[in-house]
Order: sequence, then C-alpha cells, then structure tokens
Amino acid sequence: MPTTDPTHDPARRSFLDSANDPRADFPIQNLPLGVFVRHGGGAGEQKPRIGIAIGDRIVDVPRCIELKLLDGIKPEAACALCAETLNPFMALGRTHWKQVRRQVAALLDESSRLRDDLGTQMAVLVPMIEAEMLLPATIGDYSDFYASIHHATNVGSMFRPDNPLLPNYKHLPVGYHGRASSIVASGTDVRRPMGQTVTSDAGPPTFGACKLLDYEMEMGFFVGPGNELGTRIAMRDAAAHVFGMVIVNDWSARDIQKWEYQPLGPFNAKNFATTISPWVVTLEALAPYRMSGPPRGEGDPQLLDYLKPEEEFALNITVEVKIASAIMREKKMQPMLVSRGNLRDMYWTIMQMLVHHTSTGCNMRPGDLLATGTISGTGEDSRGCLLERTWRGSKPLTLPDGTERKFLQDGDEVIMNAWCETDGFRRIGFGECRGTILPASD
Amino acid sequence: MPTTDPTHDPARRSFLDSANDPRADFPIQNLPLGVFVRHGGGAGEQKPRIGIAIGDRIVDVPRCIELKLLDGIKPEAACALCAETLNPFMALGRTHWKQVRRQVAALLDESSRLRDDLGTQMAVLVPMIEAEMLLPATIGDYSDFYASIHHATNVGSMFRPDNPLLPNYKHLPVGYHGRASSIVASGTDVRRPMGQTVTSDAGPPTFGACKLLDYEMEMGFFVGPGNELGTRIAMRDAAAHVFGMVIVNDWSARDIQKWEYQPLGPFNAKNFATTISPWVVTLEALAPYRMSGPPRGEGDPQLLDYLKPEEEFALNITVEVKIASAIMREKKMQPMLVSRGNLRDMYWTIMQMLVHHTSTGCNMRPGDLLATGTISGTGEDSRGCLLERTWRGSKPLTLPDGTERKFLQDGDEVIMNAWCETDGFRRIGFGECRGTILPASD
Repeated sequence: MPTTDPTHDPARRSFLDSANDPRADFPIQNLPLGVFVRHGGGAGEQKPRIGIAIGDRIVDVPRCIELKLLDGIKPEAACALCAETLNPFMALGRTHWKQVRRQVAALLDESSRLRDDLGTQMAVLVPMIEAEMLLPATIGDYSDFYASIHHATNVGSMFRPDNPLLPNYKHLPVGYHGRASSIVASGTDVRRPMGQTVTSDAGPPTFGACKLLDYEMEMGFFVGPGNELGTRIAMRDAAAHVFGMVIVNDWSARDIQKWEYQPLGPFNAKNFATTISPWVVTLEALAPYRMSGPPRGEGDPQLLDYLKPEEEFALNITVEVKIASAIMREKKMQPMLVSRGNLRDMYWTIMQMLVHHTSTGCNMRPGDLLATGTISGTGEDSRGCLLERTWRGSKPLTLPDGTERKFLQDGDEVIMNAWCETDGFRRIGFGECRGTILPASD
Repeated sequence: MPTTDPTHDPARRSFLDSANDPRADFPIQNLPLGVFVRHGGGAGEQKPRIGIAIGDRIVDVPRCIELKLLDGIKPEAACALCAETLNPFMALGRTHWKQVRRQVAALLDESSRLRDDLGTQMAVLVPMIEAEMLLPATIGDYSDFYASIHHATNVGSMFRPDNPLLPNYKHLPVGYHGRASSIVASGTDVRRPMGQTVTSDAGPPTFGACKLLDYEMEMGFFVGPGNELGTRIAMRDAAAHVFGMVIVNDWSARDIQKWEYQPLGPFNAKNFATTISPWVVTLEALAPYRMSGPPRGEGDPQLLDYLKPEEEFALNITVEVKIASAIMREKKMQPMLVSRGNLRDMYWTIMQMLVHHTSTGCNMRPGDLLATGTISGTGEDSRGCLLERTWRGSKPLTLPDGTERKFLQDGDEVIMNAWCETDGFRRIGFGECRGTILPASD
C-alpha cells in the first residue's frame, strides 16, 4: 500500500532517542492517542489529560496547546484535545485528525525547535512510568464480531461437528451487542466470575466460580463522527468514521456461556470484563499496513453490494498472546508465548463490520467500540483463545513453571501485543493489553 | 401488599382537578419523574429540565427548588434534580427518592399552600401540551430479558416444535445485551430497517427493506446506585438498586433476525430502534401493586439460592397494545386494541433479572436500563407481539379500516399503555409509549 505522506516516511526520526529504537512501539510514525493521569502530580495535574505516545514518553497535549506549541491546529481541535476523553476529538473527523498528526510529528521531529529546549521538553513530555493510562474514551456502546473464519470453524466444529460454519457466515459479519460498563484499561485485575454451569446439557446447573475461564485475542476500533439514527454508513464513507484501533481481550467464561447462550447468545459469559490497550493507533498511522483482502475462496458466495469493498482494508497487524503464571512472575521467568496470529486472516474487514452494523439505520456515536472477535489463523499456534489453542482442554499447554493449562488459573497474567511491519515502512506497535486473574469472591 | 405510607393513601387528593380524575395516569399517588423541554420557552427554558407528572401538568422541579418550595430535601438531592438527566438522582438511592416523593406530594396536596397561589402555580406547573418529553436518563447499557414463559414457549414452538422451551429457561432469566444508542423517547418516528433476509434457511440472502416488522410490548427498569465491577448485587439488596419503570417497545425485524441470529443472538434485528415511555414510575409508587409470585409449577426445578426471592416482587401491571393505521388516523378512527397482558404473569421478577445480571460481577451504573422481554399471557389476546398475536402471520388481524395485518405496515402507529389497579389503592398509569413506522429509505 503506497503512501507518500511525510508522517509515514520511515527515515523520519525524532529528537527523542527512545522513539528511534527500531523495536519501539511508538516511533514518530505512530503517534497514538490516549488519556492519562500523572502520578503524584499537583492538583491541576490530577484530572485526566489527552496524551500522545512517543518512545517512552507521553506528549501532554493540553500543555502543548497552552504553551502554543501546536498553533497550526484549528481552535475546535484545540478545544476537543483539552477534554478528559477522546470522544470530542473522535467526533471532529479526518481533516482534524490529520492536521493534528502532522503538527505533532513536526513538534517531535529531530529538526523541531523543541530539540534543544530542555525546559519545554520537561514541561510537555511525561515519562510513561510516571503516568497511569485510563480508558481513552467513554464507550457508549460496544459490539463484538466473529470475523475470523478459522475461529468460527474451530469453535463450530467442537459444538456442531457436522455443521461447523452456519449458512449466514459468508454473507454477513456475524456480531452481537456487548457490555460497555465492564470495559477496563490494560492493567486492571480481572475477578474470576461466578455463574451457573452444568455437567450435563440438560442441567441441573450449580452456581459457583467459573472453571473454564478464557481470553480472546481481538482488535477493536473506535468510531469517529458516526451517523444519525435511521441513516446508514455506506462503504465509500466507512473509513472516514473509523478513528483508530486498540487491542481487545474479550475475557470469556466458557462453561457459563455453554449453558446460558441459547437462544439469545452470550450474556453473562462476557459481561464481567473486557480489557483494552490504552493507546489508540489511528487509521492514519495504519495506512502503510493496509493490503488487499480478505481472501475469499473460489466457492464463496458473491458479496451483496453494500458489503463490497471500495478500498483495500485487510490490515497486516501481527497479534501475540503470552501468559505468565503467578509462580513464573515470582521466579522472574519470561512470559510464555502462546499464540501469534494476524488480523489480515479475518474473513471480514473492519469497514464491512461498520457498514453492516449501520445497515439497519443503527446509529454510531463517537467513541463507540467495535471489536473483531477472536483472531485465529490456520495453524495451531495462531489460535487466539485457549478454547481453540488447547482444543477444549484436550491438548493442554505446559508453562515454563511446569504446570499445565487448559484454561486460565487464578494468578495468571495474560499479555497481548500487536504490531505492524511491512517492507519499506517503520514498525509501529499498539503497546500492551494485560490483565491478571483474581480468585472468585463469594 | 399492605402499605401504610401516606403517599399511597387512596383518599389523598391534589388541588389540581386533573389529577383527581379516577382514570388519570398521574394522580398524587404516582408522581413519576421525567425530563422535559418547554416549547417556545425563553433562552433559560430551552435546556432539559427534570419534571414530575401530576394530572395534565408537569412540576418544574428545578424551578420549585429555586423558589424554595422543596426545602425539606437534602442539598445533594436538590443538586441532582437540577441536572439535565435523572442519572445523578438515580445514583443517590432510596432515602433521597422517598424524601423527594414525600415533599412533592405535600406540595401538590389539596392542603398545600400552593393551592391558592395561582402565580406560583403558573411558575412551577407546566401544561403537558406545552412540553416535549426527552429520554429520562443517559442510558449507559441496555439489556433485555426473555422472562415471559408464555412468550418463550410460543416463539420456541414456532421454531423448535419438538423442543419449545430450552433446558436453561427455568434455571436462569435468559437475557442479552441490547443497543443503547438507538433508544428513543415515545413519539419518535421509527424508520423501517433494511437488512439481509432469506427465503430458504440456507440462503442466499437479499438486501432490502424488512418485511416482517414487529413490536414487542415490554416493561423496563432503570438502575439506581448500582455496583462496582467485580461485586454482585444480592437479592436482599436488589430493590434498593431499582429506581423505577417505563414501558419499552423493543421493535424487532423478524426476517432479519431469523437469518442473522445464529450463533450469537439477535443483533441488527433489534438495534434500529427501541422506544420507551418518558415517565419513570418509581418503585416506591409501585409498592401497592406488588404481589406474590411469579407462579412456578409443581414440576419446576428448585431455584438456586442466589435467585430465591426475599420479598414479593411480581408486579400487577396491566399492559396494552393498540394499533392505528395511517388511514385510521386520517379518518379519525380510534386505535384498535390488539392485546392486553399483565407483568405478573412473567416467570422471572425484575429483581431476579438484576441479581442474575450482576452475578458474574458485571457492574451496573445509574441509568442503565433492563427490560423484561415481550410480556405474553396464556390467552391469544394477551400476546405481546405480532409474531405471536398473528401466529407468524397465519391468523392476520383485521383493522377497523378493513385492512389486514400480519406484521406492521408503513404508517402504522403502535401505542402502548400500562397501568396498575388493585383493591384499596388508587389507579396509577405509565402514560404512553408510541411510535409510527416510516418507510425504509434507500
């Protein structure tokens, strides 16, 4: 995917060394946005502020505006960037997003006047270790899809061996409404849920701690301006309504889900926590990693017109899951790599998800979150949840501490990463999405 | 259900005649809360304000506070009641809710000093016809249940004749997450959705206007203080977390639903609009209409402990659906009564829904909305949606204009009402929940 935008130029460097490390998630080509609070800051620094990640620092955006370092942006963008969430900035749309990106890139460039002004650097660049990251936006609605055909086929074959993929799968991106209230930022501990589970399909159930606790490795995207109720977002306009992406861990209670989900779908099995990474990598930053696709097979049905792609929007994003048990952390062992997949393997693009979701006239609001569903590829080691990775527990993993895992144990920490790499462009990353399982409480 | 609270005294009268009509929805025993804007008001009156319904008037609550007419309430309640939504007041909890109710009842009582003060009456009592009602709260999350066993059995027998009721039904209140963004206040027109539908179970689908558009007659309740993520609401505390109830019309696109809903449940079939009545009838006002139940049959399984009722919480609320076609409205014909049911016939109480929803640790926030699912009874004329009422279209209704209805046509207006009546207490009502179908737009 060629791009000649100078913000994507791989040769571009920042005056900040930590941003120029070739393995850095946050080089000057990335510039993801988030919301932070500074540890132990003064009274005026206690409120949430919008930041932009660069190397190991956070650009304090409202402070930059205060100090007139971003004078090329419009007043409405300046106003939106002084809010406590990204929702107002998400609402503004692509022209403003691009303008801010160019301005911030110029400010952080090695040729910037900030380079030799250490006083101002101190004022506007906050070390990441001195800050806590919050949710980037107030999420009005959260929807989750099922867009990996490999995931759908794997899970389907466990529960319906003769009919793994349902007839609708290749005609529309299957999705469901999720719970917005329980979305938390990376680093928040996750309490093992209680719920009803059965040993026989017909019951009776007992109430107790979930025994088959799982993660789901997903990516999510935040809606920008959105649409009015009763109108639809057409494919040609879809990209203008996508602000950016985060990693999503859609924690799942498999045993609770199995009993509750007929006929209306997953409910309590999904609503106890969903963790997202705090830095929103913008669609603009992702431009170099777009590619053709997703791959549709020879025998696959024709897409209905409203779902036909107008642009290439498969995304070459590598996703990775690691686990560290409590013992491993105590013994300072490295987390174990459990799977590595890629978003480009999904059957549906994020644009198709957005268009389909609004095809009924459903309204999207700035800050709404849509996630892809578990990202799995063809190989065993690309399966994005334990249900698939251990094949319902029949092929347990052995952790470096010697213990086996079919599903998650109390104390386990799940660490997800995602990044983009492609020839001729800089690597950019999403940072981390992590969470540790706390025991159920009675 | 005995109550000796003077706010429930059926002999109590207001100085406002319209509130004393025995058929009035809003006598002094009711006092539901809502949010209104006054038509053509001055600049200061354009912003949404909290009101309380009495007869054919709205008590302008912030104006009462300004004029020191509610001096017995606490400062935090006064502050919450000057907001533009009910969320802050919902968050305060039962002690404040009761105190405000008592104070407002005293203000509107026939013995009130307001009785002969016409000037102040003019200032604080807004004629309903001069106001527009908005959504009462910012709804963070909306969840919908499936709590009528008659509805579940009817619908199940259409789609799974040999197995209408699934094994989980009597063990837990089945529910799903709905879409919050598309909830609208009564009176908002509803655009017929577009979507994928099939003529054969295996497809292929076509994309076009929904042909099987339906309503669902439900009741919903707003959450009060709520719970922190990772904690549960126990049955004994549940009532303290329910602020009050509204009528809910969960519009449904049956043909879209049939194709899309496996395996993750209804999605686009439900997200194009949900209409609610604007007046929230408080749990306090509903106290006289509580009764034992719901009825569980002889062979029904034992409830798990966490779902066992601590108090009687079946609610004797009559619900009614009427339809008026465009021709009927033009010819000034009365809307036709289509069904009448009662919330007491549900298999699960609203308290069981709330407790089950939080049993995983899912957090509820003030203003979250939970709805019951379609309210159907045993008789044909108590079935709360057209799918059941016309038995999938096989027994069409004939409207007074001579036309037949299997499902909704463009121009049809659906009008829902609900009220409570019981010996020894005053009738109270919920007002109306109405919406008219607009043609699909391409």
